[in-house]
Amino acid sequence: MVRILGLDPSLSSTGWGIIEAENNRMHYVADGYIKTDAKMSIANRLAVIHNRLNEVLTTYHPDEAAIEQVFLNDNPTSTIKLGMARGVVILAPSLFGIGVTEYEPNKVKKAVVGVGKAAKNQVETMVKILLPGCKPKNNDSSDALAIAICHFNYRGMNKLATKTGD
Amino acid sequence: MVRILGLDPSLSSTGWGIIEAENNRMHYVADGYIKTDAKMSIANRLAVIHNRLNEVLTTYHPDEAAIEQVFLNDNPTSTIKLGMARGVVILAPSLFGIGVTEYEPNKVKKAVVGVGKAAKNQVETMVKILLPGCKPKNNDSSDALAIAICHFNYRGMNKLATKTGD
Repeated sequence: MVRILGLDPSLSSTGWGIIEAENNRMHYVADGYIKTDAKMSIANRLAVIHNRLNEVLTTYHPDEAAIEQVFLNDNPTSTIKLGMARGVVILAPSLFGIGVTEYEPNKVKKAVVGVGKAAKNQVETMVKILLPGCKPKNNDSSDALAIAICHFNYRGMNKLATKTGD
Repeated sequence: MVRILGLDPSLSSTGWGIIEAENNRMHYVADGYIKTDAKMSIANRLAVIHNRLNEVLTTYHPDEAAIEQVFLNDNPTSTIKLGMARGVVILAPSLFGIGVTEYEPNKVKKAVVGVGKAAKNQVETMVKILLPGCKPKNNDSSDALAIAICHFNYRGMNKLATKTGD
């Protein structure tokens, strides 16, 4: 049995989602998002993200974590802000000794929807189907659950490859 | 009396420097740099930066912190890496309730060298003159001390402005 934490970082709203996997089955555990107030200083917003993620980690004790590779946009100021949030988000599981695996955005969509290009609501619809009983809190937590599902899939494939001696 | 922590973040080597200021005088307290191993995962490198900065904060108890505004380069991958280091570096004092002030790079150089464009070694030479007895450990810690000096200068000006009723 393994608990996987999916993470979708941004300075304004960081999504998180936790699934549990045993053999070939997975089920939903929890999801949520961390909103920060744009009127606060960046230093304080980063502290909010860190403290809330610490709460998630101590409440749910995930074994592994996964995050999307960053979407680089043309605005360097946005890129640096996303980078700051991403650094703080990756730091939290790392301080707990939990490994963080990165996946390309297209790989995440492919793992959940079946194709590399998918609309936001397609991802959410499939997350609900793949994790019965789950009603994601918002798009950010739905994306975080999709990242956790993606990690479950590739993790499983790696294990199978090992078993069959590839 | 106030202790100021200057910070010069990067994923490979983050500089830090601490000065103490009383009335119009300042003196050197400590400086150093945090190197991380490029062979480690980014998550682990960020954890090293966080843990070492925590040590600096608990050892020297600074009251205020200052950091340069980011230098945006044309390479988005470098920008995101710098952003991640920067986020983790800003987080550390923030978790101790210490405010972090940002300064434009040109302002830092002007505060130390007297002009906005200055070579690396000019900054180091002036840091040594302004902080007698200080021998910066390397360029990164020298830059961090320059940022602390810059904060001392602008901090002083703000106070003077308040005193004279501007």
